[in-house]
Amino acid sequence: MRDRIRAAGHEVVGYDHHPENSDVANLAELVSKLTAPRAIWTMVPAGKITEDAINELAGLLEPGDIIIDGGNSKFTDDGPRAERLKPKGIKYLDVGVSGGIWGKENGYALMVGGDAEDVARVQPIFDALKPAGEFGFAHAGTHGAGHYAKMIHNGIEYGMMQAYGEGYEILIASELVHNVPAVIKSWREGSVVKSWLLDLLDRALDEDPTLSGLKGYVDDTGEGRWTVDEAIRLAVPAHVLAASIFNRFESRQDDSPAMKAVAALRQQFGGHAVKR
Amino acid sequence: MRDRIRAAGHEVVGYDHHPENSDVANLAELVSKLTAPRAIWTMVPAGKITEDAINELAGLLEPGDIIIDGGNSKFTDDGPRAERLKPKGIKYLDVGVSGGIWGKENGYALMVGGDAEDVARVQPIFDALKPAGEFGFAHAGTHGAGHYAKMIHNGIEYGMMQAYGEGYEILIASELVHNVPAVIKSWREGSVVKSWLLDLLDRALDEDPTLSGLKGYVDDTGEGRWTVDEAIRLAVPAHVLAASIFNRFESRQDDSPAMKAVAALRQQFGGHAVKR
Amino acid sequence: MRDRIRAAGHEVVGYDHHPENSDVANLAELVSKLTAPRAIWTMVPAGKITEDAINELAGLLEPGDIIIDGGNSKFTDDGPRAERLKPKGIKYLDVGVSGGIWGKENGYALMVGGDAEDVARVQPIFDALKPAGEFGFAHAGTHGAGHYAKMIHNGIEYGMMQAYGEGYEILIASELVHNVPAVIKSWREGSVVKSWLLDLLDRALDEDPTLSGLKGYVDDTGEGRWTVDEAIRLAVPAHVLAASIFNRFESRQDDSPAMKAVAALRQQFGGHAVKR
Amino acid sequence: MRDRIRAAGHEVVGYDHHPENSDVANLAELVSKLTAPRAIWTMVPAGKITEDAINELAGLLEPGDIIIDGGNSKFTDDGPRAERLKPKGIKYLDVGVSGGIWGKENGYALMVGGDAEDVARVQPIFDALKPAGEFGFAHAGTHGAGHYAKMIHNGIEYGMMQAYGEGYEILIASELVHNVPAVIKSWREGSVVKSWLLDLLDRALDEDPTLSGLKGYVDDTGEGRWTVDEAIRLAVPAHVLAASIFNRFESRQDDSPAMKAVAALRQQFGGHAVKR
Repeated sequence: MRDRIRAAGHEVVGYDHHPENSDVANLAELVSKLTAPRAIWTMVPAGKITEDAINELAGLLEPGDIIIDGGNSKFTDDGPRAERLKPKGIKYLDVGVSGGIWGKENGYALMVGGDAEDVARVQPIFDALKPAGEFGFAHAGTHGAGHYAKMIHNGIEYGMMQAYGEGYEILIASELVHNVPAVIKSWREGSVVKSWLLDLLDRALDEDPTLSGLKGYVDDTGEGRWTVDEAIRLAVPAHVLAASIFNRFESRQDDSPAMKAVAALRQQFGGHAVKR
Repeated sequence: MRDRIRAAGHEVVGYDHHPENSDVANLAELVSKLTAPRAIWTMVPAGKITEDAINELAGLLEPGDIIIDGGNSKFTDDGPRAERLKPKGIKYLDVGVSGGIWGKENGYALMVGGDAEDVARVQPIFDALKPAGEFGFAHAGTHGAGHYAKMIHNGIEYGMMQAYGEGYEILIASELVHNVPAVIKSWREGSVVKSWLLDLLDRALDEDPTLSGLKGYVDDTGEGRWTVDEAIRLAVPAHVLAASIFNRFESRQDDSPAMKAVAALRQQFGGHAVKR
Repeated sequence: MRDRIRAAGHEVVGYDHHPENSDVANLAELVSKLTAPRAIWTMVPAGKITEDAINELAGLLEPGDIIIDGGNSKFTDDGPRAERLKPKGIKYLDVGVSGGIWGKENGYALMVGGDAEDVARVQPIFDALKPAGEFGFAHAGTHGAGHYAKMIHNGIEYGMMQAYGEGYEILIASELVHNVPAVIKSWREGSVVKSWLLDLLDRALDEDPTLSGLKGYVDDTGEGRWTVDEAIRLAVPAHVLAASIFNRFESRQDDSPAMKAVAALRQQFGGHAVKR
Repeated sequence: MRDRIRAAGHEVVGYDHHPENSDVANLAELVSKLTAPRAIWTMVPAGKITEDAINELAGLLEPGDIIIDGGNSKFTDDGPRAERLKPKGIKYLDVGVSGGIWGKENGYALMVGGDAEDVARVQPIFDALKPAGEFGFAHAGTHGAGHYAKMIHNGIEYGMMQAYGEGYEILIASELVHNVPAVIKSWREGSVVKSWLLDLLDRALDEDPTLSGLKGYVDDTGEGRWTVDEAIRLAVPAHVLAASIFNRFESRQDDSPAMKAVAALRQQFGGHAVKR
């Protein structure tokens, strides 16, 4: 991301645990190299690492500086974090970043939570990171809204991927459709289901037309779970988003205790054969 | 089932492909041994075997005789079958039979489709087969209604089993609950979820407290699929019944093409590691 | 519940905010009337009310006394509560209680979390409350396991009810089945789906054969949500339990924002008519 | 569609029940105006109307002519139709057409079923109808594969729309996100969930930021149902696609019989209040 900001003509000082990627030796040096009012973008794994980095920065920064967390923090961390920084006069913005490994080239979609005046002040950074066109940036709401919007984005992403996956599986099971990759490819233009994910599915099928080199094993990074937790908290029906995360859980099970129980029941009442 | 009818004091002539279980050599002899008006109970695998048996009987029986299909025919077979028998004066009843291997002892729940006067005529057979109490028998409706009611019964059965299965799986994953079989057992009396299926789950856990001797592999015999097909035809939301049958499909897959596609997509956009 | 304990020959002192149901004026008097080592059963709404009652009791009780929370506390409250009471020498048990309004007559299913020696000491209370037979009681595990087991019980209950509900809805939509209440009733004996809930569905249909006096509006009391939250935390696929809670959410919506979005999309791409 | 074909320089004779849209008075005149070997594109409502049109054409056409059904026929109609036409020497292709009302401008995604030599012969028509780029056309497989691929396309479309709808509903329920339309808009570029459907959702929100002018009532045209029927027939788990169609059913219900049954059960066991 530094490259995109530099390319837009802004000065950037980078700090990384890997010295070869780092312009400075530590956070103190990083802060000292920047002119106040500073903007510091943190992008480290969610949880304790992010909290530690922000706490350390809070001890080094001055009133008027802004910390921007672009990592995958849970949205519930942001409000308390902003509250902790407020007495020191340090501003806080949370940013959900989408785009994957393609963002470096295409720009990143950015969803921001925090106060409007703080957003306005660092808008040049966001403009440098976002795609060139009119989309790819939103001030979503108050502290936490950026990570919240990104979380929902990921929940939707899970649902879309599962919809493509299920459709794909029916297609390859069909007796009539003989060229599934061609069908997927045809949808890339003119169809209602065209999307970037579909382009990538086509790309994957170009590389491996039967996906035989892959196992149907899918991890999850938390946002899909949080999305369903939120659906439940807010009493929003979310059959599709929940099913998508459950299918990922299933994909990682060698055997299903639930289905063992069902098999046991069938055997008990019907004498149905079981597999051992 | 013959035993239960005989035990109730009725004369029964049985025919079976296995001569050792058979009182007669063929259907013609079966018909000749019974006094008109006859009642013939067919209980053979659904589909062509049942159709063939009924067609053969139709050529042997006389007006006023009744054919009762107690097999697992699809409900859509019953109406046309009754229509074909009608011009010959042969009556037809379809009977859904529940009870599994326990019915011999406890009696079978019977759901019957057809005309009320035909049901009334063979009520003594139904009374001999059903449990002793006030329940276990219904004249559900017109031709097909017996198999229909049994189909829905099985759909519900799938849903109940899946509910128990999922609850069981969460329990055994819990860090707090150390004695899952005891919890299941406790529910057998006094709880809202007490049921015969729960009794059987407890029985299975008595035999194998961790179900370690089983694989989570579950077949299906068609009724659950037909139930969801009907839900779709009738525009009835059936999230739970559909999920229950889909989970059985999943339980039988070595790998999931849908989840391969999802894994491929994650790799494409995020560079996420995949399993090969 | 006091009546069942008294009926078993135990002395009970009851305290209630309603003086007419109360043997004493306040908790201090309650404690003073009992001989140490005491057993105090709290059964008040989950959350702050329960916490306040237990905190007040903690100031009144002596080492060796036991507090038993039979309310619907969330299982995550129990461990910390037990830890807080431990330095005072006060023991703690959490009990999930099932049985609804029928428990007074039939006994309650009890699932208990806590230390085995504490469970043993108050077993006579549990024996007085549970059904007469061999079932209806379990020492589920450590602190929290009682409420946890009850939570899962309720999650399963939601799934079973939804399975019956969906099956019922298909039955009444069918063109063939003319007597749905009779079908439900027939399942009460001899069938695989027989259960206490089914008995109650039959009872409801006896009172109102088309349920026309009810709206399809269903509240939830939290346990179903927590069950799905746990499924998600523990990576347990729970399609059926989640769908059951989502259907309750849907039942309470006048209009669905999600389906508005879907309607808007259909109109956008296909010019499909929308309802306004 | 005629306009796109004419614009590509091909001669077209159109027939329509509305004389003002019709170049000829009836199918016989249509056939007489075309030089053999002819290609006739039918695009009328699925079912009897399509069958009648094709049967009438079959009596008018000559060996070597091709009938192309671009309507929404069910895939199971195509094989038998091709078989019926074969003895007359008339070729048959089925074409699934996607693109909605936007296809006239952008081109249509076309999925074709039938024999390769027949596809090749009418490729110029497909080329005139498809989008300008390299995508938007596939020879999917044998007779029926075109409609099959389009059916799956629609099933996926339902799933994607439901995923967006659920995510949208959580967003508007959130306490943190204050500008939901801006969030949706931001995803149009740089995000993983960018798609044409998302562009249309943004368009709908531009017109009506709260969708307050719409009811959450969503019809379905059959393909989503057939997709789930196929999933069930082929034993493919399809939680997401099934949930999407069930949610449409729910959106059209004034009250839910299933949830009435659940409400009745809660009242029976727990004395819970019900709505009447």
